[in-house]
Amino acid sequence: MTRPTSVQVTEVGTRDGFQAESQFVPTATKVRLINELIAAGIPRIEFSSFVSPRAIPQLSDAVDVLAGIDRSHGTTLAALVPNPRGAARAAEAGVDQMVVFISASESHNQKNVNRSIDESLSGLDEIMRIASIDGVDMHGAIPTSFGCPFEGNVPLDNLGKVVASYRDAGIKSIGLGDTTGMATPTLVTDTCRYLQDRFPDIRIVLHFHNTRGIGLCNVMAGLDEGIDAYESAFGGLGGCPFAPGATGNICTEDLVFLLHEMGIETGVDIRALCSIARDVEGVIGRELPGQVMKAGLREDIYKMDEGATAVG
Amino acid sequence: MTRPTSVQVTEVGTRDGFQAESQFVPTATKVRLINELIAAGIPRIEFSSFVSPRAIPQLSDAVDVLAGIDRSHGTTLAALVPNPRGAARAAEAGVDQMVVFISASESHNQKNVNRSIDESLSGLDEIMRIASIDGVDMHGAIPTSFGCPFEGNVPLDNLGKVVASYRDAGIKSIGLGDTTGMATPTLVTDTCRYLQDRFPDIRIVLHFHNTRGIGLCNVMAGLDEGIDAYESAFGGLGGCPFAPGATGNICTEDLVFLLHEMGIETGVDIRALCSIARDVEGVIGRELPGQVMKAGLREDIYKMDEGATAVG
Repeated sequence: MTRPTSVQVTEVGTRDGFQAESQFVPTATKVRLINELIAAGIPRIEFSSFVSPRAIPQLSDAVDVLAGIDRSHGTTLAALVPNPRGAARAAEAGVDQMVVFISASESHNQKNVNRSIDESLSGLDEIMRIASIDGVDMHGAIPTSFGCPFEGNVPLDNLGKVVASYRDAGIKSIGLGDTTGMATPTLVTDTCRYLQDRFPDIRIVLHFHNTRGIGLCNVMAGLDEGIDAYESAFGGLGGCPFAPGATGNICTEDLVFLLHEMGIETGVDIRALCSIARDVEGVIGRELPGQVMKAGLREDIYKMDEGATAVG
Repeated sequence: MTRPTSVQVTEVGTRDGFQAESQFVPTATKVRLINELIAAGIPRIEFSSFVSPRAIPQLSDAVDVLAGIDRSHGTTLAALVPNPRGAARAAEAGVDQMVVFISASESHNQKNVNRSIDESLSGLDEIMRIASIDGVDMHGAIPTSFGCPFEGNVPLDNLGKVVASYRDAGIKSIGLGDTTGMATPTLVTDTCRYLQDRFPDIRIVLHFHNTRGIGLCNVMAGLDEGIDAYESAFGGLGGCPFAPGATGNICTEDLVFLLHEMGIETGVDIRALCSIARDVEGVIGRELPGQVMKAGLREDIYKMDEGATAVG
């Protein structure tokens, strides 16, 4: 498999990132950041979630956020929907794409949405029906695709069953979520090959967290399997519900830096992304793990009187 | 080129890491950390530097540190020597290996040691003579191998000239230093192939910094070229003299985690490394960027009543 020459980068910071924050980020701030991401050339944004406002108050303003977004650039605006009620709200609000999610592991699905995998699947047809009325695009996410914090390794056949259910329901874009950072390059390689062999018509989207520091190594493994779509968060925002202090999603600017340096196009302005990530640091009031926004690009060279001597 | 089945990990935290700290870490603390690294199975440690105590007061205790190290395990104890005077002190102290260093870029060599590359090379024969008297092993490091903060890209032929000089002086182990985090997977691939074609008898050691977040991606690229030796610092300690807030060396525990998960042996106890990295956080009094020490290993699974619900 040859590496792709271009990649679709999806920004999930205002959803997966802000969801993990204790504070509510004002609606106008979310709108500003999303519009800046759109202006920077990000082609797809998972901007919020139509879950219960009681479950995730941080994202209770999904309708108002969407209303403020500049939609003139054709950016795909996606939002999570956990059930038919959320799907109806998302359709009414006018999202471009609904993201349904069913975990690859039974324990995680139970913990995440308090339902079995079969119960989640039983609601899928109704969501598909709601989406089809308004012609809303669908994406099927699979949390714990590379391992479950409660069960450990997830057999590939279990993952394959969820993919098959999505495919049978008519979903062609499938996201493999590395919810708690358990993916490894070897696992990514094995998983992509397993799914590509069995589901050649499915587009795989990889969603990595950097919980164990190797998130971008997993992107490298995905590129080697020809995967051309990745999800990430500005500044590396996000967290892991099991590891206080661990980082969250892979960082959008660092991902785009890696891709560009490997000669892979994204259509994204990386300097604009760095500026947005610094903006996010100000919004949430703490330093984020993203590196390129601090160090600059390779071509940002210095004068000889700048910087300390290193000696070695 | 096939990936190696085992890798030599060199710990540089007490040198490259502590050198970048404003505080002086007590000699007894350095000794304790180094002895813990040895007990954890690290096969090579760049423990200090025999530079002028005025230039780097943080490492002025190299002789006393070495005297306290448990040498019964056969761990290679390496130290930087900038000139013949440092080499004489290192030989007298009894180091296993001297590390000489000459930058691939003229500007950086000037800034780093206030000499031209030719002037640095002219001192090499005398250092080799001093080392040979006591049979001390030699390693030649090349800072800015993947780019110079003042000059930008470094032509491969310039790098090749320094490698040739080292080889002509009798040095067979050569370290490519990514001093300010300018390496990229593409550059690593091109550089390794260029040197392996021209210097098949040289052992290449890769020394990456995570300044732009892709340090372990560069390791992946090195592994694909068959490179089996990498240098890193506990907890990802270190810094970049040009980018306040940017991280330093790649993190030893995260590197070992990556290697083990790819089925590559290191002989190192990763849980012991995580414990040492947390110890270092206490010693320097701040959080370090290492991730595995915070998140634990993949097999550290949780009970269903632990951790927050994520919803998505």
